[in-house]
Amino acid sequence: MSEISPEEAARHRAKMEKRKAVQDAEVAEKTIEKGLLIVHTGPGKGKSTAAFGLALRTLGHGGRVGVVQFIKGAWDSGERAALESFGDRVAWHSMGEGFTWETQDIARDIAAATRAWEKAQELMADPSIGLLILDELNIALRYEYLPLDTLVTTLATRREGLHVVVTGRNAKPALIEAADLVTEMGLVKHHFKAGVKAQKGIEF
Amino acid sequence: MSEISPEEAARHRAKMEKRKAVQDAEVAEKTIEKGLLIVHTGPGKGKSTAAFGLALRTLGHGGRVGVVQFIKGAWDSGERAALESFGDRVAWHSMGEGFTWETQDIARDIAAATRAWEKAQELMADPSIGLLILDELNIALRYEYLPLDTLVTTLATRREGLHVVVTGRNAKPALIEAADLVTEMGLVKHHFKAGVKAQKGIEF
Repeated sequence: MSEISPEEAARHRAKMEKRKAVQDAEVAEKTIEKGLLIVHTGPGKGKSTAAFGLALRTLGHGGRVGVVQFIKGAWDSGERAALESFGDRVAWHSMGEGFTWETQDIARDIAAATRAWEKAQELMADPSIGLLILDELNIALRYEYLPLDTLVTTLATRREGLHVVVTGRNAKPALIEAADLVTEMGLVKHHFKAGVKAQKGIEF
Repeated sequence: MSEISPEEAARHRAKMEKRKAVQDAEVAEKTIEKGLLIVHTGPGKGKSTAAFGLALRTLGHGGRVGVVQFIKGAWDSGERAALESFGDRVAWHSMGEGFTWETQDIARDIAAATRAWEKAQELMADPSIGLLILDELNIALRYEYLPLDTLVTTLATRREGLHVVVTGRNAKPALIEAADLVTEMGLVKHHFKAGVKAQKGIEF
């Protein structure tokens, strides 16, 4: 990098002083604390991964995390093994039977989704849980395996202070409407297109 | 949910059998294994969070993870505390001095970014590291605190098998070009807009 002139340094400082004032004013305006309903959707990678990353924040502050997987079955994954090293501070429940094209059985898919939602409600009622991850719930809602209106109402009227993250593509508009924070993971470039296979540490 | 008729169940099964065949063929086509250069960019939340979630996958499989933070300073965060519970399997280096509007000193910002990049190269050379997170490197590149061409070349010619994740808004086109996997986190809805403040477990 080239040398910074005194003029350039002064210009930078003046600009950053202004920016700092704007930033401080914006922070001061925000006073509400509340449990958030968070949705990670979109075709890109990182929806479940960011939810598990958020689990680290709760765990790092000494809290407890619940995870209910609506689609994935009880297979081994790196994220599960790592989070289970936190012992009973992570309540992990893989309630799915696998992807719809693996089970090929709609009645079985519905039964699995219903059991997963019962487990989710149980964890929502547990006051020791600070963050609840409902992984791939959007898939179960998209296929209409669960009643959307009832679910959204139950999520919206959850106990105060509980953060809930719902993941999966094609989030329903009613869920987005009820949510506090919605991120759409966009696919800019994917290694599968270049013939790279699913790898340990990346996909599982 | 209403009862599934035998006809509906059969239709579902036939559709899913076809989908499974397509899926299997697609998986069979992908044969390459390689360390990936991953970029998380965009204005939405979840860029760093998804990188830390990916760290869980590597840790769950027994690997080691390096983290270099280019902007954030040595403040306490939940994700750092949680990842540090994995002991020396996580090499965490907060090399930043804080946001540009906090330091208000361009020479200091450049010096911090340069030290962070030196630490990143050191970790790239360490064969025990399976995943390296270069957190907010995009910010240092955007402000031209580091030479883009040299960085992209060094990242592209890294040792085989090493996964690198670069996070931060406004990723440079040359970095996106060199990357294997790029996700753009889009902001659909943010709780800050509704007056909710930064909270433990969500923002830090």
